[in-house]
Amino acid sequence: MEINLSRVMNDFENIIGFTSTPGNGCTRFSYSKEDRRVREYLFARMVELGMDIKVDAIGNIRATYGKELNRPSIMIGSHHDTVKNGGKYDGLTGVLAALEIIRVLKEEKAELQQPIELVSFAEEEGSNFGITMLGSKVFAGKYNLEELKAIKNSEGKSVYETAKDFGLEIDQAERDILQRGEIDAMIELHIEQGQILESQQKSIGIVQAIAGMRTYKVTIEGDSNHAGTTPMDLRSDPLAGAAEIISQVRKMAKYDALPSTVATVGKIECRPNIPNVIPQKVEFYVDIRDVEAKGVKIVSGKLAQKVEEVSDEFSLKSTIELVGKSSTVELSSRLIEKIEETAIEKGFDHLKLNSGAVHDTAMLSGLTDIGMIFIPSKGGKSHCPEEYTSEKDIKAGCDLLLNVVRKLACKKTEKQKI
Amino acid sequence: MEINLSRVMNDFENIIGFTSTPGNGCTRFSYSKEDRRVREYLFARMVELGMDIKVDAIGNIRATYGKELNRPSIMIGSHHDTVKNGGKYDGLTGVLAALEIIRVLKEEKAELQQPIELVSFAEEEGSNFGITMLGSKVFAGKYNLEELKAIKNSEGKSVYETAKDFGLEIDQAERDILQRGEIDAMIELHIEQGQILESQQKSIGIVQAIAGMRTYKVTIEGDSNHAGTTPMDLRSDPLAGAAEIISQVRKMAKYDALPSTVATVGKIECRPNIPNVIPQKVEFYVDIRDVEAKGVKIVSGKLAQKVEEVSDEFSLKSTIELVGKSSTVELSSRLIEKIEETAIEKGFDHLKLNSGAVHDTAMLSGLTDIGMIFIPSKGGKSHCPEEYTSEKDIKAGCDLLLNVVRKLACKKTEKQKI
Repeated sequence: MEINLSRVMNDFENIIGFTSTPGNGCTRFSYSKEDRRVREYLFARMVELGMDIKVDAIGNIRATYGKELNRPSIMIGSHHDTVKNGGKYDGLTGVLAALEIIRVLKEEKAELQQPIELVSFAEEEGSNFGITMLGSKVFAGKYNLEELKAIKNSEGKSVYETAKDFGLEIDQAERDILQRGEIDAMIELHIEQGQILESQQKSIGIVQAIAGMRTYKVTIEGDSNHAGTTPMDLRSDPLAGAAEIISQVRKMAKYDALPSTVATVGKIECRPNIPNVIPQKVEFYVDIRDVEAKGVKIVSGKLAQKVEEVSDEFSLKSTIELVGKSSTVELSSRLIEKIEETAIEKGFDHLKLNSGAVHDTAMLSGLTDIGMIFIPSKGGKSHCPEEYTSEKDIKAGCDLLLNVVRKLACKKTEKQKI
Repeated sequence: MEINLSRVMNDFENIIGFTSTPGNGCTRFSYSKEDRRVREYLFARMVELGMDIKVDAIGNIRATYGKELNRPSIMIGSHHDTVKNGGKYDGLTGVLAALEIIRVLKEEKAELQQPIELVSFAEEEGSNFGITMLGSKVFAGKYNLEELKAIKNSEGKSVYETAKDFGLEIDQAERDILQRGEIDAMIELHIEQGQILESQQKSIGIVQAIAGMRTYKVTIEGDSNHAGTTPMDLRSDPLAGAAEIISQVRKMAKYDALPSTVATVGKIECRPNIPNVIPQKVEFYVDIRDVEAKGVKIVSGKLAQKVEEVSDEFSLKSTIELVGKSSTVELSSRLIEKIEETAIEKGFDHLKLNSGAVHDTAMLSGLTDIGMIFIPSKGGKSHCPEEYTSEKDIKAGCDLLLNVVRKLACKKTEKQKI
């Protein structure tokens, strides 16, 4: 059984038209006008397929095919929001794969023993509130209503108000939390957003674990002064200190930790940020990830030590604040085996890998069995207009997921047809 | 002969009331409402003193006491604009000293043989157009009308339009250029903006030379990617590269150049500046200064070499652009001697020093004899609300300048009274 690629590509083309930045990548923030257009488009397709559509309190779409079976569903999907000037494939690929898989199953009159549920999570990218995977986190019960009232966007509007204004029943967030046993499995197809598959020339990545991470905010304060009148010996320059630390962060991950460890400084702010003034204050973020907890621990420890050393040497005041943390998530061995077995049967070039990026599916760990399939990203590029995955790889990912879903959800008689 | 400190402090109090950021330092940009209020205040005082007031094409105030003598004047003054949230003393001290000196000379009926000209330069801080000392540069003929039409503020408004809107005869800029021989000397009293005088417990600094400088803009481009999915070996991280260079800039100035060399990175911009994304592009500015040209040359050379090394090692594309340059300016030995001799006669604790900051007076080098007197800045602080110079030191600076001006401008009979 195979998917029809041209239908999937047609869905892509229709949806990428809904962007607030035409000509400069896809910009579809959750709760925006563009989000509403995507929903209208998806709902129309779901209605055609006779699916039961529900939108939960935070805006996650849950649409079920075979609802009448009244059994725990096999959930598939991803998210349909983007970063600003994002790419075509991140998130949307998993949602459109799910839609096409249900189309094929209906067309083929596959006999289900469990419903198939398409999920599209809201606010995965954190574009509104700076919190990634907000939809799946709320779905997993990680935030209560009070917290949703307290989390605000840059204009001071809360998640709660935003959801209300979008027409969601946010007051019912607790009712909509996923219960253990409610679904039987969750499998997400997603682009890799890295270069492992491409460099190994594989179409399919079977995710074994999602890396744990810690994000630290480092704040360094010095003594702002005129760049021309302050001798080198009389300086407490927080940017010189920050540079010393940042240049070491890379080395800590590369040489002192494990081969799987990565550490990145992606954001830096300098005050007052004037060429001829020694800065007063520098803030930067250190993002450390590894599937092995040990790797994150090594870099965290070395970072703290380096910040202290540099502060002493440069007479700086510094603080390190842990602003984000997640543990490594192991994916379900039952699903890993099922995906691998199917990939072998269908002859897809595949490898097992770990994910350095966290995904919605990881939030459901402990509430259901979880699995993930990756397909290649050209040059590892993502979150940018250059994001690209070939049609061949999209088809491979969809076909693999289709056949895994059939194995899981269809009646034995149906399975024998595979 | 002494100045009356309470009158000077009264002038300070009146003028610091003209700020667009009440309660958060002094903000008096040139060509603003606050600038106009300062001008009205100064003009009223100048009229009381019977001075001849002229405002030139770019907005520099030139007010002459003793115009009728019809001889080259002794010019004293500084500037009255500030940075955003600046201090009370930078610039304004030299202008109010000049005003008070003329008040004393008039009061004492001093017999002049040369006029005394008060100057207050416009746009010294570069707050509008990002070009420091614009008023004195135009006065020295360093920009033509076409250039003044091309230089724009962040809202796209040119110097030319801004000056016109402020009521200035900007089309006459060429007519108003200072001619050699038009003035006999220019002496500026200014706060040190550094810590040398304070650390040596001296009230007076006699400036020998103003450091030359070069400002480089370094741009580094890498390969933006997801911070979690890109192994350390597959990265071209421009911030990691920039940090390596910035941490070396300090060492180049401190260990590889001369004791008088300083180098600073005060401004850095990172794109897209998101914690979990390896940056695409980093720009930073390197400000290098020294009274010895050799020091600037050493650091410039080492910087270029380091940028190249790091670019190769990290697979980054980089450019270095020279965005600012000035040569060392030696101050007039005639004036240095006159100031020192007077300081000794009057018993002021003084030392000779070089200026790491460039000042309006340096622009007049080659057009007249130039001199500068520094008074201490507490903690070296400047360009901030904490900027502070004690009343004792303000009085010392004013008294010294008063007596130097008397020596230069008064008749012999008058000089004998000193």
